[in-house]
Amino acid sequence: MSDLPKAIQINEEGPREGFQFERVPIPTARKIELIDSLSETGLNQIQVASFVNPKNVPGMADADQIVAGFTRKPGVRYTALWLNEKGLQRAIATARLDVKGSLSLTASEAFLKRNQNRTAAQDLEGERSIARMYKANGIPVERTSVRAAFGCNYQGDVPTAHVVSLVGKLLEVASEEGFTIKLVSLADTMAWATPVSVKRMVGAVRDKYPDLQVALHLHDTRGMGIANAYAGLEMGVAIFDSSVAGLGGCPFAGHKGAAGNVCTEDLVFMCDEIGIETRVDLAQLIASAILAEDVVGHPLPGSVMRGGTLAALRTAIKAGAAA
Amino acid sequence: MSDLPKAIQINEEGPREGFQFERVPIPTARKIELIDSLSETGLNQIQVASFVNPKNVPGMADADQIVAGFTRKPGVRYTALWLNEKGLQRAIATARLDVKGSLSLTASEAFLKRNQNRTAAQDLEGERSIARMYKANGIPVERTSVRAAFGCNYQGDVPTAHVVSLVGKLLEVASEEGFTIKLVSLADTMAWATPVSVKRMVGAVRDKYPDLQVALHLHDTRGMGIANAYAGLEMGVAIFDSSVAGLGGCPFAGHKGAAGNVCTEDLVFMCDEIGIETRVDLAQLIASAILAEDVVGHPLPGSVMRGGTLAALRTAIKAGAAA
Repeated sequence: MSDLPKAIQINEEGPREGFQFERVPIPTARKIELIDSLSETGLNQIQVASFVNPKNVPGMADADQIVAGFTRKPGVRYTALWLNEKGLQRAIATARLDVKGSLSLTASEAFLKRNQNRTAAQDLEGERSIARMYKANGIPVERTSVRAAFGCNYQGDVPTAHVVSLVGKLLEVASEEGFTIKLVSLADTMAWATPVSVKRMVGAVRDKYPDLQVALHLHDTRGMGIANAYAGLEMGVAIFDSSVAGLGGCPFAGHKGAAGNVCTEDLVFMCDEIGIETRVDLAQLIASAILAEDVVGHPLPGSVMRGGTLAALRTAIKAGAAA
Repeated sequence: MSDLPKAIQINEEGPREGFQFERVPIPTARKIELIDSLSETGLNQIQVASFVNPKNVPGMADADQIVAGFTRKPGVRYTALWLNEKGLQRAIATARLDVKGSLSLTASEAFLKRNQNRTAAQDLEGERSIARMYKANGIPVERTSVRAAFGCNYQGDVPTAHVVSLVGKLLEVASEEGFTIKLVSLADTMAWATPVSVKRMVGAVRDKYPDLQVALHLHDTRGMGIANAYAGLEMGVAIFDSSVAGLGGCPFAGHKGAAGNVCTEDLVFMCDEIGIETRVDLAQLIASAILAEDVVGHPLPGSVMRGGTLAALRTAIKAGAAA
């Protein structure tokens, strides 16, 4: 347990993951309401939208309006996702986002084929062209990620060595355009990870690239999200993507039961209780999670939003004891 | 990770935990249907009922009929819960149960006061009288448990040393009646545990009592259940209570969000994936979990029952590749 980090960075992805996943249209004003609520929690990075083709992701057809409408809170980085130059230009045009580049490769050729109709070679070539696009636009690139790093619904288990080799390729592609990469995110896109495979994969990447920070993007489809995050913490991982109330899920994973990212408030609860700093106010975050349920109009998978915090119980007990 | 056990014993508590928790009456025949379904999964210990006062627990008013009605599968131990001599005699009278004694102390005096209107001294005296009751009835006692071992909604955090001292008292009480205790179960009755406190508590108990097996009874109210189970596995814990589909919850914990035990099929899934033997057929167990939802008539918190197994995906991928 000695490798537990003292503090972690949480990248809130609930708005982007959630809005693109929901089938029933959500009014733009309500999306903005949730983002503004999240801005008050202490979260310092919030992914608010994706600039993608509205034909593929109708829930993000109002991405420009979302970004124009939320209230920027000082100290919070607001990010978005895009898949091509057109999306990037839309993000830049808002002038309200923290626009940074990221390079990604996918560890499953079968998933690439279904999701983007690409071979692995085309995926690599595509990232080369994206790296050039960032360079041409003067956008810094410090982050890389490997998708489907723990397994794939269409291809099966992913060998650790393959993920490590993809990290190497991402560093090469970045280096060709003069970018220095500081971080690699290992994404459990289809929820194949276990605490053991998280430890093995993080360890293998760190052994080969000791200077890279490792981040985890964990989906919770099979209920392993928090256990996998804990395994990451034990390996010293200090950067996590997560979704308030467990919003979202990957609409392309071809899986009816696809759940969202690991739940932000459950992750914050665990960190609070084991003494890892998150800078997030858990009570405020639970208020956002309850709002998120109201915004999407159906129950979301978060636990602490229903179970309540121990901090609140401790306060009540203390007040009772003092009375 | 080197302390991961090769195999674990799962004590299925879904029927008992679930039926006593549900507010809408469930027909006895449907309770029996679920038990019979669980008998076909490979689970070798199933807690089917509690013999308690039906005024306090109306969902268990039909305990005798449940026990009379299910089909005993060879190799499966069917257990029940009772709180006093009357309950024990009812359990013995069925002649269809594996009647073994257990001694328990509660780590929170505030919870004792609310739940049983007892002081800690009265709790200890009560267990002495229960130990005598077992001896008088020729019932073996090999198991002890500490309730609220990780914290209490009414008293707060529980010091590790206090739990260790309660284990010592349980061993003394057992020894006074000539029983040799083999196992202590640490119960996170009100879901205060984290992976770190699980490791600390299991380690402290084992340091003091290295010959005792440690079991974990983990509630999932705050979403930490599977992470806590994983932390237990890393400490070599090889006995877990769990509930199919996450059925149940403690009706006395005074907590609206009280969730059931850690979900059996999510636990089995994790063990299958990390190579720990459970002897349970996960596909059959998921069928039981889906049945459990139908029996209680509302969604239950299990994840793998919705997300599906990786074994099924691997088989489909292999079949596709072969075709």
